[in-house]
Amino acid sequence: MSGAKEIDNLIELMAKLPGLGPRSARRAVLHLIRKRALLLTPLADSMCRVAETARECLNCGNVGTADICDICESEKRATGQLCIVEDVADLWAMERSGVFRGRYHVLGGTLSALDSIGPEQLRIPRLLDRVTSEDISEVILALNATIDGQTTAHYIADQLDGRVRVTSLAQGVPIGGELDYLDDGTITAAMNARKDI
Amino acid sequence: MSGAKEIDNLIELMAKLPGLGPRSARRAVLHLIRKRALLLTPLADSMCRVAETARECLNCGNVGTADICDICESEKRATGQLCIVEDVADLWAMERSGVFRGRYHVLGGTLSALDSIGPEQLRIPRLLDRVTSEDISEVILALNATIDGQTTAHYIADQLDGRVRVTSLAQGVPIGGELDYLDDGTITAAMNARKDI
Repeated sequence: MSGAKEIDNLIELMAKLPGLGPRSARRAVLHLIRKRALLLTPLADSMCRVAETARECLNCGNVGTADICDICESEKRATGQLCIVEDVADLWAMERSGVFRGRYHVLGGTLSALDSIGPEQLRIPRLLDRVTSEDISEVILALNATIDGQTTAHYIADQLDGRVRVTSLAQGVPIGGELDYLDDGTITAAMNARKDI
Repeated sequence: MSGAKEIDNLIELMAKLPGLGPRSARRAVLHLIRKRALLLTPLADSMCRVAETARECLNCGNVGTADICDICESEKRATGQLCIVEDVADLWAMERSGVFRGRYHVLGGTLSALDSIGPEQLRIPRLLDRVTSEDISEVILALNATIDGQTTAHYIADQLDGRVRVTSLAQGVPIGGELDYLDDGTITAAMNARKDI
């Protein structure tokens, strides 16, 4: 396309990123070539470093650059609470909100009979170990409000029944949400969980 | 955000690409880490190679990996025709269509009094040289149909007046276009340039 093999190759690889197609990959590559010193070289270096160092935390499944991630290592995090999320993107979303100061456990997906994903394919056995060994008092299930997410939440709650306090995120009207645009399920959930002011 | 400096740094750099914001950059980086061998390492290598080798063709302004680009070097390209485009993305678009088999000249922008871009800021003097030295018989102006693009086209046509044949891309109804959705200017142009069937 550009006539130069290396550049065409870079465009092809960039087009494989989620959110980029062939057209936006071409635009991105031209932008990179124009901003070589400011963007292309630092980006290439950064990718090399991440390719060498990125790994899954052996404890919680978060992505980091050490065998045990910074959150698991940190002494500032509360030890009694464990927040369960489906994947690393969810963990990052929780961290951005800054509301939770305990530790995490990343399942790596949800139970799914259709895709034959059982507890062993997820990080559920490791979770049960952690609850015992780390002296956990509360497990917070922050799974997506999808059918698979809720099935997984119920399974984990069953497994932990009686051993620790198990909670899940509240369901209701999102901040800034307008009733007119909400689906029936959300309104029903918010109504059922209504509280005194 | 992820807690690891290298990964946060990569997300920040990726978010600077056109078409990606912070959210899609996070998604892209997680995707890259998951497909390390298949995507992240090849992409990092490819970026390093492009950062080292990419340069502007000294002759036409195309982006390539040699001082003179493959299109200028190729003996298969017709020598008599020169297609003038605003930037490299336009050259690539022309090449994808496969309709033109001559050589190109990339201006690097358009004349603009507001931004004080005159002929010397573009590759226009070099164009006038090429028309003389390369025995050009036709200059095809493939500039964007914007005010700046058309101003630049008229300026170049004036400069070349009498020396070579100067043509420009036809204006009219795009292939697959519906009249109901076209602007008045395009319909007027198509009407004025109507032809016998």
